[in-house]
Amino acid sequence: MRALGVDPGLRITGYGCVEDRTSGVGIVEAGVIRLVRGGEEARSVSARLAELDRDFRELLERVRPDVVGVEAVFSHVAHPATAIIMGHARGVLLLAVERAGLPLVELRPTQVKKAMSGWGAAGKSQMQRAVQARFGLERPPSPPDVADALAIAVCVLERSGDFNTETERHGVRNVLRRGA
Amino acid sequence: MRALGVDPGLRITGYGCVEDRTSGVGIVEAGVIRLVRGGEEARSVSARLAELDRDFRELLERVRPDVVGVEAVFSHVAHPATAIIMGHARGVLLLAVERAGLPLVELRPTQVKKAMSGWGAAGKSQMQRAVQARFGLERPPSPPDVADALAIAVCVLERSGDFNTETERHGVRNVLRRGA
Repeated sequence: MRALGVDPGLRITGYGCVEDRTSGVGIVEAGVIRLVRGGEEARSVSARLAELDRDFRELLERVRPDVVGVEAVFSHVAHPATAIIMGHARGVLLLAVERAGLPLVELRPTQVKKAMSGWGAAGKSQMQRAVQARFGLERPPSPPDVADALAIAVCVLERSGDFNTETERHGVRNVLRRGA
Repeated sequence: MRALGVDPGLRITGYGCVEDRTSGVGIVEAGVIRLVRGGEEARSVSARLAELDRDFRELLERVRPDVVGVEAVFSHVAHPATAIIMGHARGVLLLAVERAGLPLVELRPTQVKKAMSGWGAAGKSQMQRAVQARFGLERPPSPPDVADALAIAVCVLERSGDFNTETERHGVRNVLRRGA
């Protein structure tokens, strides 16, 4: 059973892929898709979305997750223009997940923070340290987007029991396709 | 010269395609891509994005525009969560435009309103009546998203002089921002 967590952004998209092993949950791969700005703005956003789309689809092919997790749309983003731009990246990722035929799980940010750090209002550095401790890493995952993505992935994996129940209830689109 | 204007949304995306004719600017096609909600939310948003993507790419193939226009990201959306969701749809459309290799023009909403109605703060029904008058339509285009999309398309077409200049100067991807 393999879960990919993503934390979308137009500048940096964090990702973390984890799987069930006999020794516990292990990291398959984690990192960021970093998109460089440049040139005239309209061109730049479209071009970056195309780059994000390409890189993310390559990632899906490489790590072959059984399920993808993302934080639900939340409402604490300060500026609507920022929220729209973030929404661009999130939309492109959701489209890629849908096209790949993978089940998508949306988790509340507080749910992810609580599951990983024990505290629903944990800050970025607390999440980084919690993920570090969880996987016995030498240093905290950086940037924070990677830690968040890993936390989402772990959260999805730990709930795979619930999903299997959902599978029976809602049919093929909610299925974790390859099983544990 | 054919311009397609789009007004993105996850529920309704308005579009309008116009072209230069000897008799003036004429409508090639206009309408909405309407996406029905339904089912569990995460599933629903992804599925709607995939549907929007498919319908929009079909539209691009059908009307074969030379340029696509969209309103620039603006900051008057009330609720950040709404802004993110709107951003999902906009991101998917921009990705499709980029993949089709078409130039994209971003226009300020006030610019579009002023060009069509003479007033930068025109409301929805004023824009609908202005578009009706401009094309001599029997009734105002409805829903308002169609009128907005047509206004964007006209705005892009009327600036095609600038666009062609920019094209020669910067290559086909770099569009009409300077003429603003």
